[in-house]
Amino acid sequence: MRALIDGQEDGRIDPLDRGLQYGDGLFETIAIAEGRPRFLEWHFERLKEGARRLGIPAPAADLLRAEITRVSTTPRSVVKILLTRGIGERGYRAPKNSLPRRIVLGFDWPAWPPEAATKGVRVGWCRTRLGRNPALAGIKHLNRLEQVLARSEWDDDAMDEGLMQDDRGQVIAATQSNLFARMDGRWVTPRLDQCGVSGVMRRAFREWQGARGEPVDERELGMADVERASALILTNALIGAWPVRELAGRRLAIGPDASAFNAWLGGT
Amino acid sequence: MRALIDGQEDGRIDPLDRGLQYGDGLFETIAIAEGRPRFLEWHFERLKEGARRLGIPAPAADLLRAEITRVSTTPRSVVKILLTRGIGERGYRAPKNSLPRRIVLGFDWPAWPPEAATKGVRVGWCRTRLGRNPALAGIKHLNRLEQVLARSEWDDDAMDEGLMQDDRGQVIAATQSNLFARMDGRWVTPRLDQCGVSGVMRRAFREWQGARGEPVDERELGMADVERASALILTNALIGAWPVRELAGRRLAIGPDASAFNAWLGGT
Repeated sequence: MRALIDGQEDGRIDPLDRGLQYGDGLFETIAIAEGRPRFLEWHFERLKEGARRLGIPAPAADLLRAEITRVSTTPRSVVKILLTRGIGERGYRAPKNSLPRRIVLGFDWPAWPPEAATKGVRVGWCRTRLGRNPALAGIKHLNRLEQVLARSEWDDDAMDEGLMQDDRGQVIAATQSNLFARMDGRWVTPRLDQCGVSGVMRRAFREWQGARGEPVDERELGMADVERASALILTNALIGAWPVRELAGRRLAIGPDASAFNAWLGGT
Repeated sequence: MRALIDGQEDGRIDPLDRGLQYGDGLFETIAIAEGRPRFLEWHFERLKEGARRLGIPAPAADLLRAEITRVSTTPRSVVKILLTRGIGERGYRAPKNSLPRRIVLGFDWPAWPPEAATKGVRVGWCRTRLGRNPALAGIKHLNRLEQVLARSEWDDDAMDEGLMQDDRGQVIAATQSNLFARMDGRWVTPRLDQCGVSGVMRRAFREWQGARGEPVDERELGMADVERASALILTNALIGAWPVRELAGRRLAIGPDASAFNAWLGGT
């Protein structure tokens, strides 16, 4: 792992950094494919939207671009950017003129479950729910305890991902990926105006489908809706699209869309 | 500010610490009064309960006691303890055998609004709501963006604290203090089984009232309930009890209870 903290290789995280104290910040996880950061402008757009909502000044895109290049030492790797409100005093009140902090981390490409992208993954239901707050919905902020608790519900390899509902029982996403469900011959995806993260690969999948003349609607999806879906796909910035081959023990058909999308993605 | 990281004065926060990456941890803010940490056993109880819920091993109380003594260099000061799940890999899944990290910070006693404890404080309503999640309710975890956003709603001195509602409109607490409302001749305080932090001073105020034969019930309180309360009191570990002299422009009577409680607290 290579780390730049405000551009410095030997930079330190101050214990008073509000990212640590309160989760007062944002992050992005970016795939580096064939040496280039994938969908970088969309990652920057979401980071900027999150920064606007939290009232944190966003760093210049050129600065981030240069730092991404510095930490991504192999052509296929992962870069994670954290943006925090920087150092504060004790107390929730943010200091006027606080200097936001950038942390840019380079990681190896992860080891996925074998054949996840082609043969599909096994998915179950998490018990941990997502609380709803429109002020935080959609953006990729650093308050992620709900996902951490949900991911701690299983530790064997019998399940690859877990689906999460909000406190009303609406299905929102999986712990680290967005969800698409095939309903009545169309792909639909949960609305994310109450909770959840609006993924960059979710956007890519929607736009790709739209360009093929298959627009993907956002709607509310209950557990029963997802259970009667004829097919499910999970997306995130690193995995692209994974078809789901099993939901809570039920076999699902794997259509051609995930493979076609991943093939297109490989060519972007 | 003095800082000990896992007991080391020159300790470092790793950028992969899950406290920073996900807010995956807990904190306690402890008043040091006349050289002694106040209600320390109750702080430890809450920390332990939070650690149990998040599945983080809690540090030994003796170790924390020694570190609190090391960082609290003046007889009247503040100690903040952070407990994180420690260093992780990328991804929400916690590593097996992760080593939790302790951060113990010593601060000066804060400057309060003048005469807050005797003449009362001015309180308004925050627009930012609290999402509900029973899995996280009550404990003092590091996911505090809702409080940060609420506290950013005002930056003048016309308001000392802001009351927060959950997404249903139930009043839960102020941004950094718990709430007591005088209703029909009795003190009541909001239930915290859906969101909010179960404060140590809230517990002290309830137990003190109970010992005087005035049990304080927990119940659901709507905005209209709080607005018709004959008196309001805010509590937290540092301030003790602050009476509210004004709620959103309406004057409130200041009874004897906050002063009597603070006097008792000064003698503990």
